[in-house]
Amino acid sequence: MAHQHHPTEINIGVVGLGLMGSSIVVALLLSGHRVIGIAPLAEDMEQAPEKFNSQLLHCEKSGLLTYPIAHYLSKLTISTDYSLLRDCELVLECIIEKEHIKEQVYQKITNVVGEDVVIASNTSAIPISTLQNYVRNPQRFMGIHWAEPAYATRFLEITCGEKTAAERAEWAFELAHSWGKEPTLLKKDIRGFITNRLMYAVYREGLSMVENNEASIADIDKAFRYDEGSWMTLMGIFRRMDMMGLKNFFETFKANFPRLSNQDHIPTIMQRIIDIDAKGTQNSKGLYPYQNGEAKEWDRAFSLFNKDISVLADEYAQNRELIKDR
Amino acid sequence: MAHQHHPTEINIGVVGLGLMGSSIVVALLLSGHRVIGIAPLAEDMEQAPEKFNSQLLHCEKSGLLTYPIAHYLSKLTISTDYSLLRDCELVLECIIEKEHIKEQVYQKITNVVGEDVVIASNTSAIPISTLQNYVRNPQRFMGIHWAEPAYATRFLEITCGEKTAAERAEWAFELAHSWGKEPTLLKKDIRGFITNRLMYAVYREGLSMVENNEASIADIDKAFRYDEGSWMTLMGIFRRMDMMGLKNFFETFKANFPRLSNQDHIPTIMQRIIDIDAKGTQNSKGLYPYQNGEAKEWDRAFSLFNKDISVLADEYAQNRELIKDR
Repeated sequence: MAHQHHPTEINIGVVGLGLMGSSIVVALLLSGHRVIGIAPLAEDMEQAPEKFNSQLLHCEKSGLLTYPIAHYLSKLTISTDYSLLRDCELVLECIIEKEHIKEQVYQKITNVVGEDVVIASNTSAIPISTLQNYVRNPQRFMGIHWAEPAYATRFLEITCGEKTAAERAEWAFELAHSWGKEPTLLKKDIRGFITNRLMYAVYREGLSMVENNEASIADIDKAFRYDEGSWMTLMGIFRRMDMMGLKNFFETFKANFPRLSNQDHIPTIMQRIIDIDAKGTQNSKGLYPYQNGEAKEWDRAFSLFNKDISVLADEYAQNRELIKDR
Repeated sequence: MAHQHHPTEINIGVVGLGLMGSSIVVALLLSGHRVIGIAPLAEDMEQAPEKFNSQLLHCEKSGLLTYPIAHYLSKLTISTDYSLLRDCELVLECIIEKEHIKEQVYQKITNVVGEDVVIASNTSAIPISTLQNYVRNPQRFMGIHWAEPAYATRFLEITCGEKTAAERAEWAFELAHSWGKEPTLLKKDIRGFITNRLMYAVYREGLSMVENNEASIADIDKAFRYDEGSWMTLMGIFRRMDMMGLKNFFETFKANFPRLSNQDHIPTIMQRIIDIDAKGTQNSKGLYPYQNGEAKEWDRAFSLFNKDISVLADEYAQNRELIKDR
């Protein structure tokens, strides 16, 4: 059966070659897979080669490559032609978060791949149970949700929809370990998944504070960097409670939950972003101002930081054994 | 005027010698202050000397000390006698989050200190505007909110109540820089301050996911460690949006805000913690199980990690300049 192949013999398709899609392609190349990258838009094809080159250069500088860049590029095919997906055993969709466009893309994928080929979406906005209805044989459909940049983060969420076969999800879960991930496997379809759902709660509260002029964007970020940032990577939020002694939490939750934002509407600041076509560091228009190459410097800082924090996280991954040696 | 003394000549009082209070005492000793630690409960006095000793030993191992431990201890007085606060120019209250007990403590403090001495609470549960009504001369009262462990974190929130004099808050803000902090100064009284308010939103959502059996405590922590943890320390949440290109946020916020928990009630899991007298790693009863010294190992891992992440955060503190050199 195809699913018993050695991981690196598995051809993987990636549909959508934007920021996320292209870094997923690189992650899979680094794990030894042959990858078919499909650009749903012809214009993405023009930028794609340059994008892969620069990401692989990044990886090389960060010491993530075992072979020369050319070796990885030789295992990559990029095209607008969906029929090239025909030998893939897994196809990852990471296109724009619009349901009707995803529907069309799934149609094109299922037209060419085998009946039992796993199809997964990187969506964080649309329920897997909804999307899987657009796929023939919906039990092979699931969410596989990556963190950016996919080749340097250990996070990965696998989410089942109502109709997903547990056995397929577990196959993907195993495979993800061979990509160097620390995957979570959700057998229940959570809208927004774990990490995004929690972050939406933060964004709702943060945006409401900014809108009500209670705190600035910069002060909110400062608080996160120097407070949450000082423990998040080691322990997450619940272990944090244990380590803080659990004592005052009941009282403070009781006092503060009723004061949190319950609003559904999207603050005007987000509409303004669309109005001015802000794309953040990509076009130097964002929530923050970017001048004189500052956007590029942030991108560079992130790729360095990402490597550093990943090394640090590794050091504490097992905690119990490692701390004894220090 | 007293406020123009060199920082280290300022005597500082700390009322409440629990986990947070004692690490604040150590932070202030490390910054060169003479510190008067007041234990509101006689039983706290018994544990206090051992607590300071072990925290200072930690600091020594982490390379945070300039002098031998004895030097710092010689600048510390601990007592249950409030009258020893009489020469302090700043008194920090960090006792239990109960309004009527805080009221009594403020009474005892104001009875002995000068009329213009700044009094600050480490509260994260009770509004500063409420607490300052218990203090004679309320314009000298404010929130000074620390992160644990106070001697190794750069985070500090200074919050004004409605009656706080801006000049006093700015004095504290300046002083906090001499403690090696990256303080935020909130001129408006935000209930729960910035960082806690945002975290309450996370806890409300996370607890509701656990309660509804959508995700486990361990999976939520895993997601935070490996996703949010991979960027939080570098950039905070809004810079993150800029770096993700801002594109899908409007749509995903619109789809997901209405699905977030709006509940006021505290999930039963929190009541259970009180029922079984769980104090987390302190008594090895918590949200997680702790066996065979695991709680101590987590404490140890945290103090090591805290130092490591602080070094890493320093490296990226200025971003623009530093990344050029690498």
